[in-house]
Amino acid sequence: MRKEFLLIPGPTPIPPQVAMAMATEMMNHRGPRFKTLLEELTASLKEVFQTEGRLYILTASGTGAMEAAIVNFVSPGQRIISLTNGSFGDRFAAISEAYGIEVERIASDWGCPLNYQALEDALKADRDKKISAITVVHNESSTGMMNNLALISKIRGDHPALLIVDTVSSMGAVDIPVDRWGIDVCLTASQKALMLPPGLAIISASERAWAAREKTSNSKFYFSLEKAQQFLEIGQTPFTPALSQMVAMQKGLELYFEEGREGVYSRHRRMAKAVRAAARALGLELLVDDQYASMTVTAIIKPPRLDVSQLRSTMRSRFGVEIAGGQGKLSEKIFRFGHLGATVEMDMIVGIAALEMSLSILGHPVELGSGVKAAEEALLEG
Amino acid sequence: MRKEFLLIPGPTPIPPQVAMAMATEMMNHRGPRFKTLLEELTASLKEVFQTEGRLYILTASGTGAMEAAIVNFVSPGQRIISLTNGSFGDRFAAISEAYGIEVERIASDWGCPLNYQALEDALKADRDKKISAITVVHNESSTGMMNNLALISKIRGDHPALLIVDTVSSMGAVDIPVDRWGIDVCLTASQKALMLPPGLAIISASERAWAAREKTSNSKFYFSLEKAQQFLEIGQTPFTPALSQMVAMQKGLELYFEEGREGVYSRHRRMAKAVRAAARALGLELLVDDQYASMTVTAIIKPPRLDVSQLRSTMRSRFGVEIAGGQGKLSEKIFRFGHLGATVEMDMIVGIAALEMSLSILGHPVELGSGVKAAEEALLEG
Repeated sequence: MRKEFLLIPGPTPIPPQVAMAMATEMMNHRGPRFKTLLEELTASLKEVFQTEGRLYILTASGTGAMEAAIVNFVSPGQRIISLTNGSFGDRFAAISEAYGIEVERIASDWGCPLNYQALEDALKADRDKKISAITVVHNESSTGMMNNLALISKIRGDHPALLIVDTVSSMGAVDIPVDRWGIDVCLTASQKALMLPPGLAIISASERAWAAREKTSNSKFYFSLEKAQQFLEIGQTPFTPALSQMVAMQKGLELYFEEGREGVYSRHRRMAKAVRAAARALGLELLVDDQYASMTVTAIIKPPRLDVSQLRSTMRSRFGVEIAGGQGKLSEKIFRFGHLGATVEMDMIVGIAALEMSLSILGHPVELGSGVKAAEEALLEG
Repeated sequence: MRKEFLLIPGPTPIPPQVAMAMATEMMNHRGPRFKTLLEELTASLKEVFQTEGRLYILTASGTGAMEAAIVNFVSPGQRIISLTNGSFGDRFAAISEAYGIEVERIASDWGCPLNYQALEDALKADRDKKISAITVVHNESSTGMMNNLALISKIRGDHPALLIVDTVSSMGAVDIPVDRWGIDVCLTASQKALMLPPGLAIISASERAWAAREKTSNSKFYFSLEKAQQFLEIGQTPFTPALSQMVAMQKGLELYFEEGREGVYSRHRRMAKAVRAAARALGLELLVDDQYASMTVTAIIKPPRLDVSQLRSTMRSRFGVEIAGGQGKLSEKIFRFGHLGATVEMDMIVGIAALEMSLSILGHPVELGSGVKAAEEALLEG
């Protein structure tokens, strides 16, 4: 008997009730039942996003919503600032450039905090208000870094640049008050904190963003939010949506609100704390300082003489535990624990136990049980 | 006890085995299990498409694949011919225009055959070979018209224009030998003849198309097939795919090949024939001549003094049968029976019985049982 523990930063495990809801029969996506479903989901997701602005559900993965966030709100030739300190920050810049936008990158090393000062300087220097948007990835899951959105929002102040934020791996898991922080465009995907299978993306827009959209000339069709809005008004989507995921989303959001926003946030904080404490107890180094630590994914620097692929395959084959390696330039330098979505404290115990036993198997000096002990202490501390 | 019969041109019903397969647990989309799944699906879909060319699975609905078919193969400023005689043909033209392409529409009235002669004339007149592509929707589900792909392929001849074909509502249901007909780019979606929930689109590309792609300058990111190819080579997709749908697709394709391509084609032919015979027996007029009749959707012209919405809501509320109305300019003029995907002969009997009883309820003169009788005769004829 083999049991699998999926501890990657998404897709996350899904609750059995959500899995069963996926086994739905089909319905007419232009009929009354779908209208009710779409309206309920939209309203619930606005609560998750803490927004009273506009919100749309797209049939795509998170990157599709990133593209929607660019093509609907920025025109070719316009200037934007792309804050980046990881793989997904770079992706935002790459999408913008693919659509003819002039991108000023404010880049920090992967695993290092964003250069907030440079953002402040750039906005101050922009006397003609030529910078039309700032893109940022809130939770850089490639490094386990959570960027400081509240601070970015404060720095943006009354500069007219739209604040466009990717919260793919954080929305729902931590407190992101979209309206209060003045986030103009915010996007996420289904397979992360929302505990759903991949295939749906969600995007919100402030009225300021919506007004800017009207003047945007970028090429788009499938990701046109103007079409999404037109159809939402009659309880439909412009194109056939991923119906099963939407039915399952209703179940997922029901479970989410049963636990409550604060409950979910606190569970993610505790899981992050346990993993970090365990890694330290095992003598492993964390990529990111505690003050910038992600609540949904933790990157651990591989010790010398340890092979990341070997560690992952040992954890997978011997204990059924799937963790992630690094991405891009960090690919053989770190490994990552995902702790989001339908994962709980005891999954972290499993993951850490598998880690310490696998390190031992691979000849890395480790005191068995010491990681789990530290995790337990962290969990009991609350 | 209420039982629903979904007889719209997609999403179609899905077999219970496919529904149950949707209730899958999640997996690492960058791991070995997914690699095997992706490779198996790609190989099976190439059999459905009858192609040895390239083929990619996208997380999007069919319109996403239409956009992919344009942005990867045609550049802004290039000229294309858009053949159109319905809502989806118009959509292909609209997507092309949204991406800066110069579109020459060869348009026929909705429900009328394409103007093949005009295509022939346009290609002959194009001595400098400036027309870089021809777009066409094979099965125009807005009207129940099946366009003549073999003829278009013949007319294209050795003109270098790429033949880009939407087979969203026909691929798998009727014989479309992609390679033999020289279709350069062919696309479909999961929720039609393949009997799967919506959320996946599929696109193939010939080597000629692939060579053209290298010189294409259009803006794209999420729908970049270059990225799809790069990741397919390592058994992955560029972005997190709709995993549940892909697991279910394996089951759906297994059922598809159990019935066999010829078996599936013949089932669709018989269903179409039964619906058409029944409509005629009920004194109703068909929108499209038999010689152009779609095998997957049949459009019936509403009789005078009958309200389409009322007919549909009677069929839905009294008998659990969901049919489609018209789209766009035909919205109150026709109603449509979908007969594709996981629908069988007996579903047509149900649909026709519901139609004749609803017509009777609504005061339309009709001989009860006469539609069903004609359908039965057609089915027994084979």
